[in-house]
Amino acid sequence: MTDHPLKPETKARLEAVSVATLATALYKRGLRNQAIQDVRPLAQKGRNMVGPAFTLRYMPAREDRNQLAEFRNPDHPQRKAVETCPQGHVLVMDSRKSAYAASAGDILITRLMVRGAAGVVTDGGFRDAMNIAKLDMPAYHNRPSSPTNLTINEAIDINVPIGCGDAPVFPGDIVVGDDDSVIVIPAHLAEEIAEEAVEMTAYEDFALEQVQAGASIIGLYPATREENLTKFAEWRKTNNR
Amino acid sequence: MTDHPLKPETKARLEAVSVATLATALYKRGLRNQAIQDVRPLAQKGRNMVGPAFTLRYMPAREDRNQLAEFRNPDHPQRKAVETCPQGHVLVMDSRKSAYAASAGDILITRLMVRGAAGVVTDGGFRDAMNIAKLDMPAYHNRPSSPTNLTINEAIDINVPIGCGDAPVFPGDIVVGDDDSVIVIPAHLAEEIAEEAVEMTAYEDFALEQVQAGASIIGLYPATREENLTKFAEWRKTNNR
Amino acid sequence: MTDHPLKPETKARLEAVSVATLATALYKRGLRNQAIQDVRPLAQKGRNMVGPAFTLRYMPAREDRNQLAEFRNPDHPQRKAVETCPQGHVLVMDSRKSAYAASAGDILITRLMVRGAAGVVTDGGFRDAMNIAKLDMPAYHNRPSSPTNLTINEAIDINVPIGCGDAPVFPGDIVVGDDDSVIVIPAHLAEEIAEEAVEMTAYEDFALEQVQAGASIIGLYPATREENLTKFAEWRKTNNR
Amino acid sequence: MTDHPLKPETKARLEAVSVATLATALYKRGLRNQAIQDVRPLAQKGRNMVGPAFTLRYMPAREDRNQLAEFRNPDHPQRKAVETCPQGHVLVMDSRKSAYAASAGDILITRLMVRGAAGVVTDGGFRDAMNIAKLDMPAYHNRPSSPTNLTINEAIDINVPIGCGDAPVFPGDIVVGDDDSVIVIPAHLAEEIAEEAVEMTAYEDFALEQVQAGASIIGLYPATREENLTKFAEWRKTNNR
Amino acid sequence: MTDHPLKPETKARLEAVSVATLATALYKRGLRNQAIQDVRPLAQKGRNMVGPAFTLRYMPAREDRNQLAEFRNPDHPQRKAVETCPQGHVLVMDSRKSAYAASAGDILITRLMVRGAAGVVTDGGFRDAMNIAKLDMPAYHNRPSSPTNLTINEAIDINVPIGCGDAPVFPGDIVVGDDDSVIVIPAHLAEEIAEEAVEMTAYEDFALEQVQAGASIIGLYPATREENLTKFAEWRKTNNR
Amino acid sequence: MTDHPLKPETKARLEAVSVATLATALYKRGLRNQAIQDVRPLAQKGRNMVGPAFTLRYMPAREDRNQLAEFRNPDHPQRKAVETCPQGHVLVMDSRKSAYAASAGDILITRLMVRGAAGVVTDGGFRDAMNIAKLDMPAYHNRPSSPTNLTINEAIDINVPIGCGDAPVFPGDIVVGDDDSVIVIPAHLAEEIAEEAVEMTAYEDFALEQVQAGASIIGLYPATREENLTKFAEWRKTNNR
Repeated sequence: MTDHPLKPETKARLEAVSVATLATALYKRGLRNQAIQDVRPLAQKGRNMVGPAFTLRYMPAREDRNQLAEFRNPDHPQRKAVETCPQGHVLVMDSRKSAYAASAGDILITRLMVRGAAGVVTDGGFRDAMNIAKLDMPAYHNRPSSPTNLTINEAIDINVPIGCGDAPVFPGDIVVGDDDSVIVIPAHLAEEIAEEAVEMTAYEDFALEQVQAGASIIGLYPATREENLTKFAEWRKTNNR
Repeated sequence: MTDHPLKPETKARLEAVSVATLATALYKRGLRNQAIQDVRPLAQKGRNMVGPAFTLRYMPAREDRNQLAEFRNPDHPQRKAVETCPQGHVLVMDSRKSAYAASAGDILITRLMVRGAAGVVTDGGFRDAMNIAKLDMPAYHNRPSSPTNLTINEAIDINVPIGCGDAPVFPGDIVVGDDDSVIVIPAHLAEEIAEEAVEMTAYEDFALEQVQAGASIIGLYPATREENLTKFAEWRKTNNR
Repeated sequence: MTDHPLKPETKARLEAVSVATLATALYKRGLRNQAIQDVRPLAQKGRNMVGPAFTLRYMPAREDRNQLAEFRNPDHPQRKAVETCPQGHVLVMDSRKSAYAASAGDILITRLMVRGAAGVVTDGGFRDAMNIAKLDMPAYHNRPSSPTNLTINEAIDINVPIGCGDAPVFPGDIVVGDDDSVIVIPAHLAEEIAEEAVEMTAYEDFALEQVQAGASIIGLYPATREENLTKFAEWRKTNNR
Repeated sequence: MTDHPLKPETKARLEAVSVATLATALYKRGLRNQAIQDVRPLAQKGRNMVGPAFTLRYMPAREDRNQLAEFRNPDHPQRKAVETCPQGHVLVMDSRKSAYAASAGDILITRLMVRGAAGVVTDGGFRDAMNIAKLDMPAYHNRPSSPTNLTINEAIDINVPIGCGDAPVFPGDIVVGDDDSVIVIPAHLAEEIAEEAVEMTAYEDFALEQVQAGASIIGLYPATREENLTKFAEWRKTNNR
Repeated sequence: MTDHPLKPETKARLEAVSVATLATALYKRGLRNQAIQDVRPLAQKGRNMVGPAFTLRYMPAREDRNQLAEFRNPDHPQRKAVETCPQGHVLVMDSRKSAYAASAGDILITRLMVRGAAGVVTDGGFRDAMNIAKLDMPAYHNRPSSPTNLTINEAIDINVPIGCGDAPVFPGDIVVGDDDSVIVIPAHLAEEIAEEAVEMTAYEDFALEQVQAGASIIGLYPATREENLTKFAEWRKTNNR
Repeated sequence: MTDHPLKPETKARLEAVSVATLATALYKRGLRNQAIQDVRPLAQKGRNMVGPAFTLRYMPAREDRNQLAEFRNPDHPQRKAVETCPQGHVLVMDSRKSAYAASAGDILITRLMVRGAAGVVTDGGFRDAMNIAKLDMPAYHNRPSSPTNLTINEAIDINVPIGCGDAPVFPGDIVVGDDDSVIVIPAHLAEEIAEEAVEMTAYEDFALEQVQAGASIIGLYPATREENLTKFAEWRKTNNR
């Protein structure tokens, strides 16, 4: 699905930076719309979700095709997506930005976790959200929504390019979520973005310390004063960054 | 107001199931829009709100009819609703889906609680939400909103059929809220829906255990493989469900 | 900027009342739209934010004027606002009610705090919200948003009259935030509103106690029964209010 | 229904002024929200719709109560509203600001016209709008909408106070529509508002002529220069206004 | 693509009925969401657009994949859709309900017309709308929008199931548009829906005539009085319907 | 206000091209958000509006500052903007994207026309829209809106950078409107954009003719086949373009 599998060291780097920093690194390359808009973690986990995207596309439900009996079909795309999402991947659902009905519930999301997925994101809402919040696997949505997804959505395609929260998501793109939000890194850029973000994070951590100690942001953030670069070089040595 | 008063055993059943399960049971009967959209608990209580609906309808406020002095009228519908909502009932407010101003504040909601109401729901917002969240009675709204309700709303009718969060609510309908959301069960269906939901919950609990233990959802959820029904029968015995 | 500096005793009074009570006091004077709509605290602090407004206006970003290099300009209005916001003031940002991109992040907001600001409000969203939430200074926004503000906004004006969450904000107006929401008091009214709100709060506290003890709201809230005013007078003595 | 029936001379006055002028006259009395927001004429008639409001309230549809067979009930409120709306009245529908489904279609609206209604307004949409547009009776809505109203709405109440396009509408209020929009005048104010609007219109017509002839608006609109009042007095004589 | 090609006689029937009537016929079969919401004809043509759906799916644009040079690719899905849409078909575009940028412009739509398409629908907006309005082929959109579609959309799939204006659209479904709006008939139902709609239209035309002549709608619409069915039978003979 | 006055020949060029073509020319330079979103002409004039922007900024109205008497102030910014907008300029109003109340009415807009303005744009709505539509000067808005602008807006700044329909507008930028929509060209780019757009228009006119005559768009639009460039060269000679 992608020629750019996620390397363990890239994953480790992406676990150590914020979505905000990644957004800026992407912005430098002209990519402005990679943040998945208006989703939030069901629970703050204090660690990042990182993994390649495995996608599910919903379309508007037509009533005659979306009776509960549909779920008896072992090939129903929603069920199949949960059972085939590769280990370490993030299941990203295009729920057409509507939380009127659920994108999935706790049984499916638990199954996804047991199968080894890295996380799940929908631009709709989860049912049983109070339970999904307690799972060990990160999950992101717009808001809790109890009606079954059949009410408005039909799962139609697995692992095709989709939109999620107005962001473009291609299968294999690297999805990163922190306690604030979620962003999508094009697969071919993941490595360089991860490296750059680690560098940026080092400087941001340094700058934050300086600011906490009373420094002005002018000349420091960004580093337009030479002395700040010197200080930073020392800080890196001292802090082993 | 209704020929279908809420039986204690039905209430007990509805306290033991999730809104998501109820939504599916209603869906089976062709009722797709009974969830009150875009409301959330002010605080997660870890238990369900269950009670018949007692309703209050707001209309847009006309300034000359909505000065603060209006509240001096002992028959002001908002005040009267709080003082006449029967014990065990849920006060449901049609605030025209706007949280621009408050639907009510902590003094009124505390009074409602003291009077024995089962809960309160508005598709607008509460003022003093930080205090209402701490009350022992569940409350649901869209978001905190501090301006007095007179700013945009006039309380006009008590206990008439209303819309709340785009759901139809008839006086006497059974309102159930959990830590995720709120749903409205037509009064005449409450008993059968409650029974069915308890059955469904038993299976869902069983299925979740199986999934946690590594089972695939295919053939299990829903139960299209005979063996899962057999296992479930055993599980019920073992677990006394 | 204003002929009505915030007196310490007024500040103290405003720290002891709720935004809801202030909204009603303003409503009595015909001011209905002073609440900043659809913002919330990043963390509930259990105390009020109070301070005169210092404003920042954003306009839609034009790409050629909003490359990252812009931040190297020491006079960039966003940076300058953070470095010049007077001690004790609240920085209020007109982010055009969009949280598509960030209004600011943790380094700038930390600097603002270190410089002695009383708080910060945007009708957009903050990046690094998880960190800003932990700061000792109150912050209010719509939702976390990770993309850099350059993505959609250009900081264009400092300390001009603005709109924030559809409320009018003039430099020097007194901004008060509690655990629910934020309101803007015209500078020339702050003193009288603060005094009146303290009086109203005393009565509300009394009324809430009465309600908790079983009293009806009719005749009590508002106080249309003479006996309640008598009781209140006694309560004030007993409680030293 | 109202103690303030519409007098023929008031009606005549209201036919000769614009909704904009009426909005300003109401504004002077503190009434800011009487315009029905976001509705438009199906066709520009070049004349005003004027009449007392006769109202119909919709609530969200529950599927089991809203099958097509419901229309066979001669007392179905939508049908009944059409058959009982008094001559010269305007049927105003609270369609919950949704044009997802229709508020009514051409057969009902034609019947309303034949029965002598002065017009019809919904904050939803009409089906068969292309035909209704050609009728001799003015009609206002948000946009054409073809699905039957049962899809989302149940007609529940006739001639109760409602909201329409966020404006408060009481039965008997005077509804005026022109080629731009629609406004609601509280019944007890209709006479004085009509008189004042006629006066204002005279001055506006005079001012427009002056402006077309090259006059500055400063001192003319509003008339703060004495000479303009003198000129206006002459103009009234000359033009018999 | 479909086992249910559109028969000439079905097409003729669908050209002679309104979208409103079709919506009701679908409603009777439990299909409530087949109307494409919030689109309108660029120009009222006074005749129906009828044809099987040929679909184009847009996803959010990623800047590096959506430079103008992309259009030089002869296989670009937008261009290809225009060049491969079969004669007599309606090109239906899923533009993610956004008219921020264009779905297509006059050169492409003219080409579509020259190639024999029956019409075009987008839930976004067309550029050069003033020119497309003058073409002989019907076109429907939300509003004119001048920016190139690359600004927000990437054409990604041809002739897959899509959503358009929240309606489900499968390739081969029959799309019908009149001067008000557009609806989607599942391919396998087109024939029976067309027949039923012709019958319904006959009765509606009869009922409208009766209403114009002064008849009440009670007992007439729907026909619950026997005499109206008798009159209708005569009317059909007289009018050859 | 700008170092880039609009040259007569640039104006002439901009009168001869469409907003869509200008949008593409700006897109090539990385400017994606220059179209003023969701505004439309009050009447299609069949010719372009072209002129430098003169801006007016509205902020939310505070009731005590926005009584009708304010208009008696000869320096009221709305009045002053109308009386000082330079000849040939387009008055662009930032009405905070709300048409709840009017941005201006026919007397002011007529005065603007008499004073020689090139046009007027608001992202709100005009009152007396039916009259403004008939004026000889182009006007663009969202929808007709009758309430006086004081209802929600206070005019606060003249000729500062603003947002209008989410587009950045700097005083002196060149504003172009056609029968579809409006776009803003940064002043320093106007000349080169105008020249390029004229060239593009020539090719588009040629391509449209080819398409009308049966040509495929592949290789023609854009011109990736050499032969089309040859044909175009001939066409230019023949057509004197």
